[in-house]
Amino acid sequence: MSQIFERLVPYLEKHMALQTALALLDWDDATLAPKEAGEYTAKVIGILSQEDFVCLMNPQVKKILEELETDKTMDSTEQAIFRKVRKQFRKNEAIPKEEKRAYAELKARSQKAWEEAKKEQDFSIFAPYLEKMIAYGKKFAAYGASDGQEGYDVLLDDYEEAFPVEVLDSFFEKLKKEIIPLLRKIQQQPPIDDSFLYLEYDVEKQKEFNRFLAEYVGFDWNRGVMAESAHPFTTSWHNHDVRITTHYYKNQLASAIFSTIHESGHAIYEQGIEDCYTQTVLGEGASCGIHESQSRFMENIIGRSRAFWIPIYKKLVETFPEQLGEVSLDQFVAAINRVKADEIRTEADELTYCLHIMVRYEIEKMMINEEVSAEELPKIWNEKYQEYLGVTPENDAVGILQDVHWSMGDIGYFPSYALGNAFAAQIYARMKKEMDVEAELSAGNIGAIRDFLHRTVHRYGALKEAREILLDATGEEFNPDYFIEYLKEKYQKIYGIS
Amino acid sequence: MSQIFERLVPYLEKHMALQTALALLDWDDATLAPKEAGEYTAKVIGILSQEDFVCLMNPQVKKILEELETDKTMDSTEQAIFRKVRKQFRKNEAIPKEEKRAYAELKARSQKAWEEAKKEQDFSIFAPYLEKMIAYGKKFAAYGASDGQEGYDVLLDDYEEAFPVEVLDSFFEKLKKEIIPLLRKIQQQPPIDDSFLYLEYDVEKQKEFNRFLAEYVGFDWNRGVMAESAHPFTTSWHNHDVRITTHYYKNQLASAIFSTIHESGHAIYEQGIEDCYTQTVLGEGASCGIHESQSRFMENIIGRSRAFWIPIYKKLVETFPEQLGEVSLDQFVAAINRVKADEIRTEADELTYCLHIMVRYEIEKMMINEEVSAEELPKIWNEKYQEYLGVTPENDAVGILQDVHWSMGDIGYFPSYALGNAFAAQIYARMKKEMDVEAELSAGNIGAIRDFLHRTVHRYGALKEAREILLDATGEEFNPDYFIEYLKEKYQKIYGIS
Repeated sequence: MSQIFERLVPYLEKHMALQTALALLDWDDATLAPKEAGEYTAKVIGILSQEDFVCLMNPQVKKILEELETDKTMDSTEQAIFRKVRKQFRKNEAIPKEEKRAYAELKARSQKAWEEAKKEQDFSIFAPYLEKMIAYGKKFAAYGASDGQEGYDVLLDDYEEAFPVEVLDSFFEKLKKEIIPLLRKIQQQPPIDDSFLYLEYDVEKQKEFNRFLAEYVGFDWNRGVMAESAHPFTTSWHNHDVRITTHYYKNQLASAIFSTIHESGHAIYEQGIEDCYTQTVLGEGASCGIHESQSRFMENIIGRSRAFWIPIYKKLVETFPEQLGEVSLDQFVAAINRVKADEIRTEADELTYCLHIMVRYEIEKMMINEEVSAEELPKIWNEKYQEYLGVTPENDAVGILQDVHWSMGDIGYFPSYALGNAFAAQIYARMKKEMDVEAELSAGNIGAIRDFLHRTVHRYGALKEAREILLDATGEEFNPDYFIEYLKEKYQKIYGIS
Repeated sequence: MSQIFERLVPYLEKHMALQTALALLDWDDATLAPKEAGEYTAKVIGILSQEDFVCLMNPQVKKILEELETDKTMDSTEQAIFRKVRKQFRKNEAIPKEEKRAYAELKARSQKAWEEAKKEQDFSIFAPYLEKMIAYGKKFAAYGASDGQEGYDVLLDDYEEAFPVEVLDSFFEKLKKEIIPLLRKIQQQPPIDDSFLYLEYDVEKQKEFNRFLAEYVGFDWNRGVMAESAHPFTTSWHNHDVRITTHYYKNQLASAIFSTIHESGHAIYEQGIEDCYTQTVLGEGASCGIHESQSRFMENIIGRSRAFWIPIYKKLVETFPEQLGEVSLDQFVAAINRVKADEIRTEADELTYCLHIMVRYEIEKMMINEEVSAEELPKIWNEKYQEYLGVTPENDAVGILQDVHWSMGDIGYFPSYALGNAFAAQIYARMKKEMDVEAELSAGNIGAIRDFLHRTVHRYGALKEAREILLDATGEEFNPDYFIEYLKEKYQKIYGIS
């Protein structure tokens, strides 16, 4: 081990321990903690977060990082850790302390305003906070600007390195050109019958089936926990303790099923990281987009395929004979792939999901790189929804107020969701060259697919950057054409469009 | 607020936040965490514990504590916090750093040796570690010795202030004189039939009944959680988040029931502490003994009384009609009070429980105040069991190796269990002067009993010391006669002995 790097280790270990505690406090708060604990937990989280901040942002760490700039004795893992910590240090250091404090306070108030605005269906309650968030976004972008990176690109880089506006513009232009016309054609077809997915489904039986499902796709109970929360999520402190949640609805069968597969996709990634990165800053996914590629791959490309359900649909029918006894495998597969251009992102189908992201991407770009006031945004939002999805939100609660992200200052996050879908399709194209994916799935051999993902993506954790992982896994740079081809082929077939 | 005290607050808050995280990590590890997480969690706990230690044990805190010695501006709460922190500081400071590190390492190895010894039924595996633990106990007692306190008294003071050997000797002598002869008479009676408690009881139904039971005795779900773990326990980060566990056995009905009532007794105490102590070092029970008095009060004095079961036995029978349909209330109450002098403390009945503690107390006193080698102890243990309880353990695993405490260096803890029983009886005697406890219980009005405990004990948290609480609640100093009278009256009646 590099002798200079060695001096960094105690700071990294304390950071890891505090991060673990913070993640556990969050998980516990979302899944188990009693009702009245919330405000006291918030206080504990505040103190430990501050402690964590001071642990990494201090003159000793700064000095070590400076010394490491010219250190030639680090191995590749140490180098990757150094780069990650240095990036975080620089981003944090660039923002003056007082602004950080004011921003933290704004965030807390902004989220409450957003909740209130959503509840009251009144954007004007949230507008002044969003206005300030946009101003902070611009400021932070200016602070973080460096050679060849400015404006919105600086914020995008927080969530996904090396995927700036230039790349995203070209990606979304292709989507616009190819997917919107396809959607229009689908919208002229008679809708697929999926009414049987909305019968009454006993929640206890759903739980049992979803536990089976998580295990079937590869979730390892020896290093994982599954629980319930209002909104499904995955959290992980290291590859030996990865946790997912699902939310069950009595009148919806598909919701929990695809949440479970989605979160299991995230979890299998985390569980598959190699032990040499455990409890280091590399012991997590490479980026938001790569993480989302793994969850979406499992949820959509695998979980909504006919081949996936061939070996296990029988089990689902046996669990719910009254509701599904008369429903054929083909009817079921058609129903779980029904395209419904709707106003809500989180309920969107695979085809239209990225169009929801496109609306947000274009608006974020305007926020940071142009002059737009918060008050104008609902109108812009609604127009874009009409143009791309062919729907106009009934009110702002199901329109511009639907997502929490902007109220938390997360501007630049959304595009990584879309990138995740495109990464997944590119990886899928490569996988199909190496194996007969449908045949493996039909034979119940999902392990072969997981092995491919483990070998090319999971094992590395955050050692490699997203772009490098994609290049090594698929043999080429990011290419959104795979995603567009995948969507066109799949949905033309489902809807009988040539 | 005292200006000097104010400077202590940031240290106290950080300590509180770290303690919360540590308690949550422990809880999670015992109830939910996946199998493989253990060793990684241990590392996190190690780092955060060290952080917590440094937070309170440093020159700044020492200086503030010294200044507070002569500060006249503290209010009573600040004074109590000051006293508690100072005591901890002094005890910690007295032990040289290197010894503390060596001791921590010994503890880890000692526990593993104890587990191994217990599994192999071979005391010799644990003997060398116990020998070292005794040596450390003597050293720590010497370091902590002060005016009028030395030897075993110093260790006792860690768990229960103001109850030294002098007080305990007199307590246990009375027990010996009165309870052992009563036990001999009971052992000559025909045993009570409790076979129906060991039929097969569906675990899901047990869970349902135990949730009802926790709520019935006063557990507040808005500020509490109930889960399962191998060994039942209560933990609390503050009065708005108190957690209990139970363990269910398919072939034992009473085990979970009395665990639930016992842990609920602890929990109601913690939940009942006033908000002004929340997230301070006073926001916990006054002492081990007072805590145990509240759990034992609920479990034994209330939970094993006939009056308690009058309003709810019907519900238990309805839950298990096949097993209990033919069992009368009186048969049930007799069965849950059956005296069985046995070798295992944790399974002991109310009458013999303190005799188990007496064995440990006498041995601990020998360990610290006399010269005894670890190797001699199993023989001494077995002889005392024969003398007091009339049984000789079959092997050391169910003899001297049964409890984890000594392997963890907890010498001086056991007596607080016995004191808890005696405190409970003294409080009960006082309560009976104020209300007709049986009538209230029979009417299902357990709230009246809880109110008394809340008013006299719970609300104060650790503001008062144990002795002060007892004095204020009962109007007199500790008097073990109440406990002895309570036991004699109850068990003479149950066994028809005059």
